[in-house]
Amino acid sequence: MDGEPGFQEDIGESVSHHQTVAELGEQRLLALLQSYGDPEAIGDDAAVLPIASGHSLVVTTDVLVEDVHFSDRTTPPHSVGWRAAAANLSDLAAMGATGIGITVALSLPPDCPVAWIQQVYQGIKDCLHPYRLSIVGGDVSNSRIRSLAITALGQVSPGHQIRRDCACPGDAIVVTGSHGGSRAGLELLLDTDQSLLLGEAWRSQLIQLHQYPSPRLDCVTCLNRLHQADVLTDLEIHIAGMDSSDGLADAVLQLCRASGTGAVIQGEKIPIPEALHHWQTPQRAMEWALYGGEDFELVLCMPPQAAQHFCAAWPAATIVGFVTVEPSVYVDCSNTAVSTGAEGNLPDLLLTLDRGFQHFKP
Amino acid sequence: MDGEPGFQEDIGESVSHHQTVAELGEQRLLALLQSYGDPEAIGDDAAVLPIASGHSLVVTTDVLVEDVHFSDRTTPPHSVGWRAAAANLSDLAAMGATGIGITVALSLPPDCPVAWIQQVYQGIKDCLHPYRLSIVGGDVSNSRIRSLAITALGQVSPGHQIRRDCACPGDAIVVTGSHGGSRAGLELLLDTDQSLLLGEAWRSQLIQLHQYPSPRLDCVTCLNRLHQADVLTDLEIHIAGMDSSDGLADAVLQLCRASGTGAVIQGEKIPIPEALHHWQTPQRAMEWALYGGEDFELVLCMPPQAAQHFCAAWPAATIVGFVTVEPSVYVDCSNTAVSTGAEGNLPDLLLTLDRGFQHFKP
Repeated sequence: MDGEPGFQEDIGESVSHHQTVAELGEQRLLALLQSYGDPEAIGDDAAVLPIASGHSLVVTTDVLVEDVHFSDRTTPPHSVGWRAAAANLSDLAAMGATGIGITVALSLPPDCPVAWIQQVYQGIKDCLHPYRLSIVGGDVSNSRIRSLAITALGQVSPGHQIRRDCACPGDAIVVTGSHGGSRAGLELLLDTDQSLLLGEAWRSQLIQLHQYPSPRLDCVTCLNRLHQADVLTDLEIHIAGMDSSDGLADAVLQLCRASGTGAVIQGEKIPIPEALHHWQTPQRAMEWALYGGEDFELVLCMPPQAAQHFCAAWPAATIVGFVTVEPSVYVDCSNTAVSTGAEGNLPDLLLTLDRGFQHFKP
Repeated sequence: MDGEPGFQEDIGESVSHHQTVAELGEQRLLALLQSYGDPEAIGDDAAVLPIASGHSLVVTTDVLVEDVHFSDRTTPPHSVGWRAAAANLSDLAAMGATGIGITVALSLPPDCPVAWIQQVYQGIKDCLHPYRLSIVGGDVSNSRIRSLAITALGQVSPGHQIRRDCACPGDAIVVTGSHGGSRAGLELLLDTDQSLLLGEAWRSQLIQLHQYPSPRLDCVTCLNRLHQADVLTDLEIHIAGMDSSDGLADAVLQLCRASGTGAVIQGEKIPIPEALHHWQTPQRAMEWALYGGEDFELVLCMPPQAAQHFCAAWPAATIVGFVTVEPSVYVDCSNTAVSTGAEGNLPDLLLTLDRGFQHFKP
């Protein structure tokens, strides 16, 4: 987003909601996009940002394409922006990093309504707001289909970096929140008839989980405190982790594969949104919790004592299992009858990577 | 580009050039792309990169879309990658920054040949090589059209940042190399009949300027030395500047607009590739030099003594004019008869922003 010093006035007010990109023109579009960014950070040809002394830069990129990652049917533009930002902030959190800012590269057909862009940018801005982050740059291009490529920038003190390859047998596996809700929300949006079976409050809750996931950048401070905690100074604190953007099963499998370990997950411990239990069978709820994806929680492996401290500090966190020497990843469902309220337990599951989310899968 | 520890083998050798993305599959595609990146930098969920103490982070993003920024007709895939990287490195140079690395977000239809992607990535890698930079991360997505969003990361010591708004009347205007060649090369590629009028050596030279522009990141060390030079310690050194990616005229106009100044350019001083003089009229050569764009040189404003030092250190650099109090930007062509070998001088020109490159122009 190059500097356009002649267009510093507040352009937001002067744009009609019925205008298209072609009608607005490139210069005014750039000025409009800049009005959503941080004027302090956006430089002439590039953004210039301070970074804390002794910290490393962390960078992650995601591209979202219309009809692949979002569609008008399931994702209003404000949510498109929010989800794009959330996915990237989640990757920063998965590295143990705090945020610096994001850049947005936007591709648009000339007939794209300006109102769509404004809502996307507002969604990005609203997602960044709780973390005091802002849009620090970007680019815009003509294209036959809409897409967003977001790059998030963060920083981490080298000792606090969260890796995937350091889970140890005996570690507790902690999730920072519930799983399955995003997939359930998507199903409700795709099949509105299903929505009628569920009360409006439950329905809204699940749709909210799909359209407005909270990236766990807010957990990073908690995790950094674990490293520093006095009570733990005698222990060797290691934290392995990643986010559950491709599903809880995928996260546990990736962590185990990178660390050369296995895991046992206790099925009844996996937090699943109550609304989902009201709507689906225990089997289906478990399937969406494991394989649904896009819940954007963190899946962390750490010594049990550290895990207890973390769960005390982060109330939504739950210990769902343990890392094992044996390399396979099992879900033990022998206590699920009680947790699901069903008559019998679910069958135990052996997790495999091939059920994970793949964009190019035939 | 998330870590895929199970695919660390050299996948490059095992890919057939006739395969498509769909045939290769997402996991193997990610592994292939990773083989072009820096294994030291690519982290699990994001890249982690050191940054020099006391330096600020510089970040710039460009998106390139098929049939808007490149097409099979004019840009072989190796050049698509090169040009995308060059455009971003040029933005870093325009800020006075040195490079850290780049991320690449790729959108592809499933029938895209893997060989096309390999050549794009090789082009990016080859462009980065002289600056010891590498691909540090990225993402890949299914899309109906091919596009690349590149984010370049750099660092700058705050005192060495090049801004647009600090050009002063009396400053010399320096360009780091010739202009018009990229546009001339594009014309040759679009109209092969024209090529027949020009010898093969001239033709190749102009096409090379279009397909393989050199970003002026190599000038940054020279500019930093200017700041430090003993001979200049008595002077207040300010350097205003930007790159000429949208044309030399646009760069001078933007610098003057941001600085509240004007400029006089001496037409005969603008370096134009010799091949262009052999092919086009002096008028056409001047038009392409001023408005052609994508030459990716730097346009710098600095005190005349500093400019002389810089030109001595960077032989391709030329002083082409001076910054004025009067806010208009003129090209004085009263000495162009000699430089062009034409019978008379070109008419003087008053430059205006509306002729610059606009993607959404009707």
